[in-house]
Amino acid sequence: MIYVTRRETFSASHRIFNPDLSDSENEMIFGKCSNKNGHGHNYILEVTVEGEADPKTGYVIDLKILKKIITENVLQKVDHKNFNLDVDFMEGINPTTENIAAAIWNQLADKIPSGRLHSVKISETENNFVEYRGTR
Amino acid sequence: MIYVTRRETFSASHRIFNPDLSDSENEMIFGKCSNKNGHGHNYILEVTVEGEADPKTGYVIDLKILKKIITENVLQKVDHKNFNLDVDFMEGINPTTENIAAAIWNQLADKIPSGRLHSVKISETENNFVEYRGTR
Amino acid sequence: MIYVTRRETFSASHRIFNPDLSDSENEMIFGKCSNKNGHGHNYILEVTVEGEADPKTGYVIDLKILKKIITENVLQKVDHKNFNLDVDFMEGINPTTENIAAAIWNQLADKIPSGRLHSVKISETENNFVEYRGTR
Amino acid sequence: MIYVTRRETFSASHRIFNPDLSDSENEMIFGKCSNKNGHGHNYILEVTVEGEADPKTGYVIDLKILKKIITENVLQKVDHKNFNLDVDFMEGINPTTENIAAAIWNQLADKIPSGRLHSVKISETENNFVEYRGTR
Amino acid sequence: MIYVTRRETFSASHRIFNPDLSDSENEMIFGKCSNKNGHGHNYILEVTVEGEADPKTGYVIDLKILKKIITENVLQKVDHKNFNLDVDFMEGINPTTENIAAAIWNQLADKIPSGRLHSVKISETENNFVEYRGTR
Amino acid sequence: MIYVTRRETFSASHRIFNPDLSDSENEMIFGKCSNKNGHGHNYILEVTVEGEADPKTGYVIDLKILKKIITENVLQKVDHKNFNLDVDFMEGINPTTENIAAAIWNQLADKIPSGRLHSVKISETENNFVEYRGTR
Repeated sequence: MIYVTRRETFSASHRIFNPDLSDSENEMIFGKCSNKNGHGHNYILEVTVEGEADPKTGYVIDLKILKKIITENVLQKVDHKNFNLDVDFMEGINPTTENIAAAIWNQLADKIPSGRLHSVKISETENNFVEYRGTR
Repeated sequence: MIYVTRRETFSASHRIFNPDLSDSENEMIFGKCSNKNGHGHNYILEVTVEGEADPKTGYVIDLKILKKIITENVLQKVDHKNFNLDVDFMEGINPTTENIAAAIWNQLADKIPSGRLHSVKISETENNFVEYRGTR
Repeated sequence: MIYVTRRETFSASHRIFNPDLSDSENEMIFGKCSNKNGHGHNYILEVTVEGEADPKTGYVIDLKILKKIITENVLQKVDHKNFNLDVDFMEGINPTTENIAAAIWNQLADKIPSGRLHSVKISETENNFVEYRGTR
Repeated sequence: MIYVTRRETFSASHRIFNPDLSDSENEMIFGKCSNKNGHGHNYILEVTVEGEADPKTGYVIDLKILKKIITENVLQKVDHKNFNLDVDFMEGINPTTENIAAAIWNQLADKIPSGRLHSVKISETENNFVEYRGTR
Repeated sequence: MIYVTRRETFSASHRIFNPDLSDSENEMIFGKCSNKNGHGHNYILEVTVEGEADPKTGYVIDLKILKKIITENVLQKVDHKNFNLDVDFMEGINPTTENIAAAIWNQLADKIPSGRLHSVKISETENNFVEYRGTR
Repeated sequence: MIYVTRRETFSASHRIFNPDLSDSENEMIFGKCSNKNGHGHNYILEVTVEGEADPKTGYVIDLKILKKIITENVLQKVDHKNFNLDVDFMEGINPTTENIAAAIWNQLADKIPSGRLHSVKISETENNFVEYRGTR
């Protein structure tokens, strides 16, 4: 089995906030991550596709194509945006790294033309990472 | 001459925006960096102090002390904040990386207890850096 | 399934040495790693917790809490210490990266308040890594 | 279970090219990667061995030995070489990252003296990675 | 004074070779770097412009513009190319990192619309770097 | 002017300690860095040579030769060693990063066969760096 990964980066802002909780509960649980005016990150996104190499091309998936799919379905919607206010596929979702990774999985899972989506990994900072492996 | 550097990171959001310009001028000059709801970065800050090593300690400056000065004068004001709305020392300043670096220089220049401030470097992304060397 | 990782660093010294072997056997097997006066590393520690995101918080585990657990149970005992002489949970254990990873797993496995410990990864240098996955 | 990894780097050139296809098909599928005079990369190779720690040494595998095996069977054949013209174990194989990883797996799988080969990972650029896990 | 840097990467192949020397002299001086069929690298290019921040924009130079200048004058000519055979501005020049850096300086020095070119830095591998500072 | 840099790494242990001070003064000034049994680091060493490119070779200095000079005069004396007890050129010197950088400068300054030594930079951790520029 072969695992092929494309790494991309994007810059976005967010506020960790659950509207079903009171302001003081949000503050107590999320602390400075819940700053009213938001904060931001350079997110690193790693999308991994698993499969076998095609004998004709030697590729599991052409990374130029994977890059195009990620750009159109994710990067153009999140880069230089605010996760709470600007991103359609995050509407109503608290933008924790876990929830962002799951939402990006859902954006990509049925659009991979060869091989199968294996995982979506997001590094929020150089010390905090989340890897999501959904079901297809 | 010895140059001693402390590296720190912080996460903040901003919108590149000059209030003296019209909205369409801001959009034309700053493009996606001027997104109304902001975006964000993991900024890397490198503060360099130059001087001679103290024969008693072998230090130009104790990096524990430099870290404390950076934390109190910069990090506590910018980490998990919005540069346009939350940071006192950036009030009225368009938060480009150039202007952030100059403002941090001003926060730190007269607070270095041994050696002299040499430069303030900020990496906004892994591809964009600014180094500021002011006058003391 | 979601995998959440917290990365930490610490600086420690060690000597690879098995007291059940003679000095010449230690020298023959471990070479320069067995230098009598020790040597040291900036270890990178990555602790991964697996689980589902809590619908209330959007977290598998709050990384502020995971950081606190790692700090109290590992970092305060190993940072700026000598693995052979200073660390209680390594007493009588040859401080290879494999053994350090397993010992850190044992320090943490039953202290994770949400999700389950998945792996402990240690990078001894930029070229040598060990990942330990124990049983819970 | 413990996973031990040795990271190495090498610099090589290649041309993505399938001789069973016409020149225009190669150009259409592989684009600039099929440049007639080749191009090159600093490849990062990560070889992972899985197993239990030997009670005598505390090692799954001595990384000095793993480094020697990788050097003799891989690095001496590929570093500062052209994958299409100079590498015996790539003869007749289109040098995509997938195919290089599989070929390196085959070079190493039966030469690991303790533990078992778990994976061969190659980073072609800082954005493109392939991990190969074969059968033993 | 402010120094603004844009980092880019490109992948190219080369052969270190001085045609004024004999084959054996080339082999003796350049060793494996002179491999007949070439080898390659992921080059990291850092272009630094110095100047003052424009009060209107807060920029020394708009990095979108600097990126465009680097792309048109350098990257499109060298990425996925062979330095000895494909690059017009390296014709007749032995492609050492020193000579590549100087040639890229010459490509860029008179095309910087605000500020002045300060340095061109190239990392050939993670261990070998060259910084060139020309005269304007 | 061209600046050529060779990066190397080594792993060593040390204890920050000034024998002219009392134990409690050492403890007060140096804190955990003065741990009696030492601690350690993966030091990153960057040696920069400045000069002009030789028209015959295109090199300021052949990095294979610079690597050999660094290995023989520095790495073989410090890698997998204890700075306080094992390193001849650090005898009687408190092993702060500043003092290590200056001592390495002295080891190398008169051994550079072409160009001139420009700087010695040491990264003690990913957050603490020292650059030393001596007089020749």
